[in-house]
Amino acid sequence: MNRTLILALSLTAIGTLQWAVAQDRHLYDGFKLVDKTGSLRKPADYRETYQILGTWTVLDPKGNQMHYTYASPGAAEYFRRNKKFADGTVLVKEINATDHATMTTGNANWSAATQVWFVLIKDSKGRFPNNPLWGNGWGWFLFKSDAPDKQVATDFKKDCLQCHVPAQADDWIYVKGYPVLHTK
Amino acid sequence: MNRTLILALSLTAIGTLQWAVAQDRHLYDGFKLVDKTGSLRKPADYRETYQILGTWTVLDPKGNQMHYTYASPGAAEYFRRNKKFADGTVLVKEINATDHATMTTGNANWSAATQVWFVLIKDSKGRFPNNPLWGNGWGWFLFKSDAPDKQVATDFKKDCLQCHVPAQADDWIYVKGYPVLHTK
Repeated sequence: MNRTLILALSLTAIGTLQWAVAQDRHLYDGFKLVDKTGSLRKPADYRETYQILGTWTVLDPKGNQMHYTYASPGAAEYFRRNKKFADGTVLVKEINATDHATMTTGNANWSAATQVWFVLIKDSKGRFPNNPLWGNGWGWFLFKSDAPDKQVATDFKKDCLQCHVPAQADDWIYVKGYPVLHTK
Repeated sequence: MNRTLILALSLTAIGTLQWAVAQDRHLYDGFKLVDKTGSLRKPADYRETYQILGTWTVLDPKGNQMHYTYASPGAAEYFRRNKKFADGTVLVKEINATDHATMTTGNANWSAATQVWFVLIKDSKGRFPNNPLWGNGWGWFLFKSDAPDKQVATDFKKDCLQCHVPAQADDWIYVKGYPVLHTK
């Protein structure tokens, strides 16, 4: 191998790496969080590396909540293009308590401690037909703040699905609350 | 130059590039949005590439609002480490109208059309002492939805500062509403 060839191959390698970096947002594969039995690890870095889809503020006399929904990189761009979520997309929904105060803009509410996390992963292929946490095109998981890394749902139909029934036509997701799925 | 040296240098280049990629989140320089007179372009891609710091829901009988605050990549990580914002950090605060409905979780509010954008850039060096949009350690900018790319503030002391006075001790930013500045 002559030196020109080595240099050319090396430059090709650099170019490939740069391309991979540029495409990185499109390549997120949530199944790296899933083991062969269908258990899922909550992504440790979602606040740093995922993008916000939207926030819900639920007004309740017993205590308001703010729900932050994060999506894995590239999820919104794919959705805008294809009108559906990509296989392997991960959604993390933080349920947070709130604080509030009269501030310069009025009666302002903001998120305080996280209470629970719902984590969904899009599964277009029906990978785990015998695992009760998988079904209807998604894997469904629940983590609570007293043990943030311990998955505690046992059956997605009992623990998760009821709240999503009204959104069935939108693949079980309340997409209207997520502006970035519609406009960049 | 022999082929071993060329190969070694090439591998070093790849290694450097990989390091640069890994560090990319720390290298965001908002001043690429600023021209030599101190005008700032609103970042086009903040919904895709910035991270959410937090959402404020302002309850108002005349119409609730949701304020989404985004920060440029690496901002939160730097803040957690240094207890201040890095020079060149960009914050984008979207002021959104809201919709609401009784949903499975209760009286849920979510963000609708964006009304205005406040954009701040951290300037630790007092770069534009004679520009009335710069001062108190930041550049202050305002864009409205009728012309989303047209900056319309004329004097940060009149157009922006009043609402931030209560947060002066925190470098003019309401950091308590931004959990990720405190916990990853």
